Amino acid sequence: MAHRLADAAARITLMQFRQPGLRTDNKAQSGFDPVTEADRACEAAMRGILEDARPHDGILGEEFGSRPGSTGLTWILDPIDGTRGFIAGTPTWGTLIAVAGAAGPLYGLIDQPYTGERFEGGFGSARLIRAGVHTPLRTGRTERLADAILFTTFPEIGSAGERAAFGRVAERVRLTRYGMDCYAYALLALGQIDLVIEAGLHPYDIAAPIAVITAAGGVVTDWRGGPADRGGQVLAAANPEIHAAALALLTSEAES
Amino acid sequence: MAHRLADAAARITLMQFRQPGLRTDNKAQSGFDPVTEADRACEAAMRGILEDARPHDGILGEEFGSRPGSTGLTWILDPIDGTRGFIAGTPTWGTLIAVAGAAGPLYGLIDQPYTGERFEGGFGSARLIRAGVHTPLRTGRTERLADAILFTTFPEIGSAGERAAFGRVAERVRLTRYGMDCYAYALLALGQIDLVIEAGLHPYDIAAPIAVITAAGGVVTDWRGGPADRGGQVLAAANPEIHAAALALLTSEAES
Repeated sequence: MAHRLADAAARITLMQFRQPGLRTDNKAQSGFDPVTEADRACEAAMRGILEDARPHDGILGEEFGSRPGSTGLTWILDPIDGTRGFIAGTPTWGTLIAVAGAAGPLYGLIDQPYTGERFEGGFGSARLIRAGVHTPLRTGRTERLADAILFTTFPEIGSAGERAAFGRVAERVRLTRYGMDCYAYALLALGQIDLVIEAGLHPYDIAAPIAVITAAGGVVTDWRGGPADRGGQVLAAANPEIHAAALALLTSEAES
Repeated sequence: MAHRLADAAARITLMQFRQPGLRTDNKAQSGFDPVTEADRACEAAMRGILEDARPHDGILGEEFGSRPGSTGLTWILDPIDGTRGFIAGTPTWGTLIAVAGAAGPLYGLIDQPYTGERFEGGFGSARLIRAGVHTPLRTGRTERLADAILFTTFPEIGSAGERAAFGRVAERVRLTRYGMDCYAYALLALGQIDLVIEAGLHPYDIAAPIAVITAAGGVVTDWRGGPADRGGQVLAAANPEIHAAALALLTSEAES
């Protein structure tokens, strides 16, 4: 079902990606928060499929909110995670699809249709599917911050306190990079990078990454070591050791 | 010839990209400046082809330096521009190939073999080639900073004075994004973004982007409006109007 949803989303996103005159709205009224028509059409298409095939499951989507269900399962949809990247033409956005139970995400899928990469994980296994080839996903074994590669989307992350906390980790790692949107979580699951630190996330931004990264061997929590599936401050790490090292530097600002 | 070189480079880079144990060296002795074996092997393969087929042209390469020629033409090669991105697994690095005459770059090619995108420009035309489809490249028409999308690779760009100059532009634009390596120049040629501002570039980092962007209708100079082909501080813009607007904010720090 998740693959059917991702296929439906990709038909819409790929028609719009890099097309002239991509329409944007100002969702937040102030500041720059583009929401494309593609975003809305995409979620509508996925909800249509779910309402037809899984009418008793719940749905939580970025654009059209929440519909309660009776099965205990909720589909969590972010049609275009990384709309700024989408508008700028970078293939770093993705369609995020997750299925959650009472205890959090059970399965997740991160789809990047322009590069043709589909990362999925849940129920104890995770894989990258590209051009029909399935490659198991396994997070990296880097345990020391001094050897780690850290990603975040914006250097302007969160509040002043959050930036300071991020900075304490960034100054210890081997390399800090920016701008990858949800693609950074895919790179973590792939074993390419070791840490992703973000703030201000929504539940639909993080449900699919949690499932994929956890199934690939990684650890995803908030900045206090608790569950991350409600969004907010998120620390995603390749393994428990590097997670603990980064968490120790973040916690003192987790309340900010 | 440039396509033959890019094909040879791609055979090597794609064998190494995202492989475990990618070897890195510390070229600069201090700090993090990874040079992969792939980088060296790639340039060696391209030089081998050139020395065989174009023995009288000059060559300037990132890894193996310069070889003078007698034809007035010099091939400028950066086998993997964006080695940090290469190591992190982001498909934002590229193989850069340019041909320069006495007055600067005549033709350039930016190849991203993982996404299958080849951007080329020179002699008055520019195109993206992907999966056999040729799409003309045309830079955007955004003239006002308030509407512009700006890219740079690192928020840590250059000296304190350079960061301040960059910040003056960044605070006026609609959106600033980071981390794209040479892919940002390709997005500029594609009309997706409006400005790329970098500092500390080498000639082999910028020769191919100059040719591609200029042929697509853009303007590439240093931060004082002069030629950019020697590297250093670079301002690449979608059109003369947005170039002038950004230049006015950069110039006062161009000496720093």
